[in-house]
Amino acid sequence: MKIKATLLTIGDEILIGQIVDTNSAFIAKQLNKIGIQVEEILSVQDEMIHIIEAFQRGITKSNIIIVTGGLGPTKDDKTKAALCQFLNCELVREEKVIENIIQLFEARGYTKELNNLNQEQALIPEKSKFIQNKYGTAPCLWTDFEDKIIINLPGVPFEMKGLVLDDIIPRLKNKFEADVIVHRDILVTGISESDLAILLEDWENQLPDYIHLAYLPNRTSIDLRFTATGIDEVYLKESIQQEINKFKVIAGQYLISENSGKAQRVLGDILKQNNLTISTTESCTGGNIASLITSISGSSSYFNGSVVAYATNVKTSVLGVNADDIDKFTVVSEQVAEQMSKGVRTILNTDIAISTTGVAGPNKGEDGKDVGTAWVAVTNGEKTITRSYFYPYMDREDFIKTVSNNALNLAIQFIQKELS
Amino acid sequence: MKIKATLLTIGDEILIGQIVDTNSAFIAKQLNKIGIQVEEILSVQDEMIHIIEAFQRGITKSNIIIVTGGLGPTKDDKTKAALCQFLNCELVREEKVIENIIQLFEARGYTKELNNLNQEQALIPEKSKFIQNKYGTAPCLWTDFEDKIIINLPGVPFEMKGLVLDDIIPRLKNKFEADVIVHRDILVTGISESDLAILLEDWENQLPDYIHLAYLPNRTSIDLRFTATGIDEVYLKESIQQEINKFKVIAGQYLISENSGKAQRVLGDILKQNNLTISTTESCTGGNIASLITSISGSSSYFNGSVVAYATNVKTSVLGVNADDIDKFTVVSEQVAEQMSKGVRTILNTDIAISTTGVAGPNKGEDGKDVGTAWVAVTNGEKTITRSYFYPYMDREDFIKTVSNNALNLAIQFIQKELS
Repeated sequence: MKIKATLLTIGDEILIGQIVDTNSAFIAKQLNKIGIQVEEILSVQDEMIHIIEAFQRGITKSNIIIVTGGLGPTKDDKTKAALCQFLNCELVREEKVIENIIQLFEARGYTKELNNLNQEQALIPEKSKFIQNKYGTAPCLWTDFEDKIIINLPGVPFEMKGLVLDDIIPRLKNKFEADVIVHRDILVTGISESDLAILLEDWENQLPDYIHLAYLPNRTSIDLRFTATGIDEVYLKESIQQEINKFKVIAGQYLISENSGKAQRVLGDILKQNNLTISTTESCTGGNIASLITSISGSSSYFNGSVVAYATNVKTSVLGVNADDIDKFTVVSEQVAEQMSKGVRTILNTDIAISTTGVAGPNKGEDGKDVGTAWVAVTNGEKTITRSYFYPYMDREDFIKTVSNNALNLAIQFIQKELS
Repeated sequence: MKIKATLLTIGDEILIGQIVDTNSAFIAKQLNKIGIQVEEILSVQDEMIHIIEAFQRGITKSNIIIVTGGLGPTKDDKTKAALCQFLNCELVREEKVIENIIQLFEARGYTKELNNLNQEQALIPEKSKFIQNKYGTAPCLWTDFEDKIIINLPGVPFEMKGLVLDDIIPRLKNKFEADVIVHRDILVTGISESDLAILLEDWENQLPDYIHLAYLPNRTSIDLRFTATGIDEVYLKESIQQEINKFKVIAGQYLISENSGKAQRVLGDILKQNNLTISTTESCTGGNIASLITSISGSSSYFNGSVVAYATNVKTSVLGVNADDIDKFTVVSEQVAEQMSKGVRTILNTDIAISTTGVAGPNKGEDGKDVGTAWVAVTNGEKTITRSYFYPYMDREDFIKTVSNNALNLAIQFIQKELS
């Protein structure tokens, strides 16, 4: 059975661009794991009329509406009132919620009395059930509405995540026998998206109708995502593998990875499998590569650390880059990238090291190098490979992201080549 | 005149949680700057029926629909076909788009002939105008529809950003005399959200109806956001200032900053104003603080660099942390945090230094410290302040973010206190 969900986000901060809606991506991923498909994601203003209309839309389109935000104690939080109006019921007081708030305050060392607004958090629409929130004061609401479900969660990410993982996913899994959804990505490079699509046309046309293919082009590679929906997970996975086998006959020379994913995860897996350690030294990427590597749990087994060498004198004094070479070739050069990588590898005592140096902009570098220029090096002490990049149109944020990703991919290629 | 926009995102990768929709936040921010208010943000599947229904909804609710994604050359991109069906018109070929693709390929050093799918990118709905995309092969589409506008942009962030800043915002600004929207955030700490709301109740009730107040609670502080809408920017800004002056009489003791914003930006401003430099050394935050600091353009004038000391031996060998103290107090301790901060300050030769050490999880630290424990230190060489945090319920990502943000705020407080 196909079970569909609408994700509804309430709060002006998303509509004015102050924050990025990361909650929806998290919830969508968790729902997909139990076979529930997200029909749409909608963000509306924290106003009764908009919230009620969004409930109505969600109920029409999906089996489940998951609402985040607007449950706080202050005036600008109107979700509970909107839910009452939508359900045509009153708020009733739940003493157990008060008990939870008192426990929570005690654990945080607060000694103060509950004020009126704290008390109001215990008011629950009488047609809803509540689920205790051990992470915060606003309880989660679960409302059975005709044959649909409306779930209200607080918008604070760590409260939302805790409730989704501890309570919502287990309950939904128990309630619905949803179809299984299997995703798998493979990574392709060395061919343009359009040339690839032409090459794959016949194969794409013969794909079974329960397998859906998507092209996700990156700057230097393309992710091909297979999505299979059905009832038998093993069968779906095998079907995708069979299609990948056919793909390899047609376009195998362009395939980098049969299980692509975030570069920092792929790199971590390769390092662990081969018992190698890594360090980074970063100028233009400013610590972003280290931050990506350490976003993977367990990275401490292969990542020793990084020297973020933002100032030029850190490159010479800490990493031992030759000052004359900086004068001669400038700080954004192949020579400096290479010396940085070798320097950090020695200092942090790792098998492999990555370095970056470049001009993220928006202003030109101190030596007049153009914005968007970068050099990346990867070394194992004996061999070093270097690459230059030039992205004149990118803003600072995208430039840092792209160079970081390129550097991680270069390290993957370097290790794979050295090991083969 | 109130001008409203709907942001529509097309693409399954958002609905399965594979990527976070950062495009919408970027566009919303730019629209707000020219007085256009985002009515809602909607993400739908890359299917004709869903896209067309979303066009219909957007047209009903807003003056402008800005659509991102689905313009690529492959089968899974259906936006152009959906737009034709919605407009009831055919695709026509625009030779100038072909010329742009050829130029772009030449600039990238491609010598190959344009294939059929490249050629198809030059097909434009005959009721739409196109805007050349100098960042990629898919042109931007601008469609006047009755008294509304539909704008189609590619989903690749750097292409979208370039087109929005270069073309879309100037054209919309020219076309509409939109109301001015002014946002201002102030930062409050030392009081719970609900106690603050009770304290401010009378003041909040007397706010003029063109000023809207929102509470944005963080872990250790609350952002209060004022949003004023009208026609006279100077008047709106003055009105907000007057309300902040009244706020200060009531709750001035809780105010940290009259112009809050991202901590890395506030810290950068304070460092620049006082001609101070900073460095970081990070264990549990893994380079994230360095990455946040260097996300601000111009940070090279005050940020020298960082030593990401993930492995314990980097803490001793590079930073000079006493190995006996690590044995005695464990690596996640006040003593180690303090020595790390002093070590990096000396090595990277800065006025101020920040350090972090903790257990991000999901597994316990090597010395058995509980997941969610962290120590942060800030030093100027003479004085050092330290703080401990314990967030047992947070996942790895939120823990890293929260500790990073705490560390930046601690540095702000430290500098403000030392200077006063």
